[in-house]
Amino acid sequence: MSRKILIVGGVAAGPKAACRLKRLQPGWDVTVIDQDSLISYGGCGIPYYVCGDVSDEKELRSTSFHMVRDENFFQSAKGVRVLTRTRGLRIDRQEKTLLVRDLDSGEEKTLAYDTLLLATGSQPVRLPVPGVDLDGVFSISNLHRAIEIKDRIARGKVGTAVVVGGGAIGIEMAEAFADLWGVETTLVEYMEQLLPRIVDRAFADMLKKHLEEKNVRVLTGESATEIVGDSDGRVTAVRTGKREIPADIVIMAVGVRPRSELAREAGLDVAPWGGIVVNRRMQTTDPDIYAAGDCVASPHLVTGRETFAPFGSVANRQGRIAADNIAGGVSVFPGVVGSFVMKAFDRCIGATGISYETAVAEGFAADYALTAPADRAHFFPGEAIAVFQLVFDRKTRRVLGLQGFGMMNDAVSVRIDTAAALIAKGATIEDFMTVEMAYSPPFSAAIDAINAAAYVADNLCADLLRKVEMDRFYAWMEDFANEPDWLALDIRHAREATPYVEKFGADHWLAIPYSEIRERYRELPADKTLVILCDAGTRSFEVQVFLDHVGLKNTLVLSGGFNVIRRLGADWLL
Amino acid sequence: MSRKILIVGGVAAGPKAACRLKRLQPGWDVTVIDQDSLISYGGCGIPYYVCGDVSDEKELRSTSFHMVRDENFFQSAKGVRVLTRTRGLRIDRQEKTLLVRDLDSGEEKTLAYDTLLLATGSQPVRLPVPGVDLDGVFSISNLHRAIEIKDRIARGKVGTAVVVGGGAIGIEMAEAFADLWGVETTLVEYMEQLLPRIVDRAFADMLKKHLEEKNVRVLTGESATEIVGDSDGRVTAVRTGKREIPADIVIMAVGVRPRSELAREAGLDVAPWGGIVVNRRMQTTDPDIYAAGDCVASPHLVTGRETFAPFGSVANRQGRIAADNIAGGVSVFPGVVGSFVMKAFDRCIGATGISYETAVAEGFAADYALTAPADRAHFFPGEAIAVFQLVFDRKTRRVLGLQGFGMMNDAVSVRIDTAAALIAKGATIEDFMTVEMAYSPPFSAAIDAINAAAYVADNLCADLLRKVEMDRFYAWMEDFANEPDWLALDIRHAREATPYVEKFGADHWLAIPYSEIRERYRELPADKTLVILCDAGTRSFEVQVFLDHVGLKNTLVLSGGFNVIRRLGADWLL
Repeated sequence: MSRKILIVGGVAAGPKAACRLKRLQPGWDVTVIDQDSLISYGGCGIPYYVCGDVSDEKELRSTSFHMVRDENFFQSAKGVRVLTRTRGLRIDRQEKTLLVRDLDSGEEKTLAYDTLLLATGSQPVRLPVPGVDLDGVFSISNLHRAIEIKDRIARGKVGTAVVVGGGAIGIEMAEAFADLWGVETTLVEYMEQLLPRIVDRAFADMLKKHLEEKNVRVLTGESATEIVGDSDGRVTAVRTGKREIPADIVIMAVGVRPRSELAREAGLDVAPWGGIVVNRRMQTTDPDIYAAGDCVASPHLVTGRETFAPFGSVANRQGRIAADNIAGGVSVFPGVVGSFVMKAFDRCIGATGISYETAVAEGFAADYALTAPADRAHFFPGEAIAVFQLVFDRKTRRVLGLQGFGMMNDAVSVRIDTAAALIAKGATIEDFMTVEMAYSPPFSAAIDAINAAAYVADNLCADLLRKVEMDRFYAWMEDFANEPDWLALDIRHAREATPYVEKFGADHWLAIPYSEIRERYRELPADKTLVILCDAGTRSFEVQVFLDHVGLKNTLVLSGGFNVIRRLGADWLL
Repeated sequence: MSRKILIVGGVAAGPKAACRLKRLQPGWDVTVIDQDSLISYGGCGIPYYVCGDVSDEKELRSTSFHMVRDENFFQSAKGVRVLTRTRGLRIDRQEKTLLVRDLDSGEEKTLAYDTLLLATGSQPVRLPVPGVDLDGVFSISNLHRAIEIKDRIARGKVGTAVVVGGGAIGIEMAEAFADLWGVETTLVEYMEQLLPRIVDRAFADMLKKHLEEKNVRVLTGESATEIVGDSDGRVTAVRTGKREIPADIVIMAVGVRPRSELAREAGLDVAPWGGIVVNRRMQTTDPDIYAAGDCVASPHLVTGRETFAPFGSVANRQGRIAADNIAGGVSVFPGVVGSFVMKAFDRCIGATGISYETAVAEGFAADYALTAPADRAHFFPGEAIAVFQLVFDRKTRRVLGLQGFGMMNDAVSVRIDTAAALIAKGATIEDFMTVEMAYSPPFSAAIDAINAAAYVADNLCADLLRKVEMDRFYAWMEDFANEPDWLALDIRHAREATPYVEKFGADHWLAIPYSEIRERYRELPADKTLVILCDAGTRSFEVQVFLDHVGLKNTLVLSGGFNVIRRLGADWLL
């Protein structure tokens, strides 16, 4: 028996569900409506379109076999009817109808459904400051706006740009402006760090330094308070609490929120922050209404809370699962771990699970292992340092998250994706110690970065390794009075360590090479806290263990060592 | 109380265990013996040293901070005593001593132990054919031989090379000769495919084609029966059953086997194929003797059998675990899944778990999903097709293995490593459908390759998708009489399909573009088996489902489609 399936939203979850439904139930009547005229596009590709890496916006809404995914394509190839420029206005759950408006004609009509799928996605948060409606102020809400932005730049109208918001989209847009178009670009983020809540401070700061090296001015801890325009209503500047920044174009990228008005007005359960409540079969509190994609609340597999996971990839998976269930099968969405990766100029940054900061806030017995190993065999040409941080719970030994910062290749995503698979399964430090990364020198080290990070976590849990926080070390370097009894023990090669001894004096900085410690440890003062320093932290750990053994127990290891310091930058770096 | 730990073998598991032991029990007396003078080197890096990517062999036995890992280094930096050029001759389990010989002086002595660790590694299999001792015949047994090989090539003495053995080392050596040194290189493998037992035939054949494009002559299904030399005892050629191949140098790379004579002669349990039997704490059948690395039998997490896993990465992990247990802790090695990756010129090939062929032989209800998606967003510059095959059990839906073949970047290892993590945990198709790969266009597609492969497996299990084997399709293309009722239905763009219709005739090849099938399906004959063809197989699946719905149920999908065919090559390819 044929059934009528109505889907609201035609970007990711909606089209995916529609196509899957037609494969499972080819005889069913499947209709997708969308208020936009452009549908089924890769929204995550917008920054790459703006910067020119993707030359034509049509590529973002084409299949891999180069057919544009428009209404005709869905009708002829998929048997799915698509009504564009059609907005859903009101659900009548008793009658099982949706009132819609044709945005071109203004005409309203009702569409009947047996099952309704809400795939309404998300929309940019609107910052409540004066001037956001000025000409030249954009949010990355859809392809039309992206086309307008690119058109403006291509016409040479943009010499200065301000991006408000230091999340992924803001950073990607800043790169697009600065890198390909040479626009003088400023990124403003009101939080104290980039990518807030996604990565921990050190990772955000390594990223910030790289953006600055690439001529993006980054202002963190600074709010945009007003967008300033000229008498013609064109944007000219962004005002913050501290300054006025000239801007021919302003990108507002302060986050997105679920589009769930239809659901709320129909009396479906909606989380306070806007996510539509669904069970793991993507069913809302009305059994005939499903929801999938950015508009829903997804279970977080680490925190156990409902969370917002606005990723095109999650939307696709949820769309398929919703379709399976709508079609009469059983398919379950287990939840999300929050995997994230992005390109930023010549670097890649990624994360999965939760950050250390989040883990502390959530009440975990949180700790972290900060490491800075080679991203493949250290003797293989082109290898580079990547920084990883494994976040874990000391009580249960469960791994809670992994963050990575490395070169612009897939070395970070290899570890992030593997970690995501493990974390979703509730994996412990032991699982990370033994996970079998394929080994060959062009791809990995014999001790892979993910195993190495777990070893550090294991050593921390066993209290074999005692570390000092990077920011505490920085504070000491700013002013030695902050930790009057500290003494740096630099175990790197003499040629690296000696300049520091010469600059800071032997009462603050001692140099004994790693391989001489066993012979020379008697030179070390017993009344000081020794902060052991090397490139990555691994040699420092060995030295700490040895010094414990000979009775010098007052030592701390700077995890990540100079590999991390060099990526963070410091005035005192020689 | 200090204990004496004696370790036999100084390459991977041995040094790792020694160093870990000194961190856990700094006061213990740890001695490593090795019959070689060079120790603690990255054996997997040898091909990259031979080809010149790694310029100095010292890099293979140096730390990431550029210190050579020799006896002095281990003594001064690690507190580990190393005796090189020292061979273990006989274990006396009652007395707890090891009789050793100094290979330079010939002197023999006994070393006492509280705990003994056998990390004796593996050695090349010696092919029983005449001439293997000729000058110029090498196995990749240790660094000395590698240095000799490189020296010979660098002196311009090598114009032609034959590599016997189509496993990873053989292929890497063939690349080293052909690519960097322009040596005329032939690879001989007695099995019908490269990488036997590691990947399935189609993957081996795609690799073979690429090697041939790079001027390596590949002879599979051909045995080296004799190595031929001149009157000075220098190699001149390799004779096979079919021909004589001139060779200034011959590399014997026909596999390795565990070095377990010491263990066997001491009465420890040793598997018939030579692997030392250990429990999951790396303890042999004598509780005071542990073993780790290439010399042991490791549990395979998919087959449930003991297996040989000669990887430097596995050896490192086992070494650490052995040390933990020797030191008095508890640490467990769960087993291996057999993760594998290698570079071959401009391509990467990888695998984890077991192949389809192995799965059938092991008695699984084996099936496979062959896919050929983009390795990142299809609109992102530089994206390329990667071929993946997910092997699974239809009865339990457990995933048994994954193979990948793609460009020389990390895109294959991302999926192999993630799959390895999941397979080790007994994951099912559902786990692969929902694994959360970090999504951003430069790194991945919204529907990641690993999710997509699981979707295909899901469709196969649901009997929604019915596929035809690639080799059966090739046989039909060789001779249409093989399947008289078949008709190819080519649903690619007309410009791609039409030349095939013109060449093979409408009675063998029909072209209807994908997007026109719903309108034109009545043109299709009901009395033929339609073999549906597209680029990747995904559109073909959709068409199959639709044709089922309209009553044309006699169809088969060529999974992987022309993306795989083009990588396999074919005479009939237009």
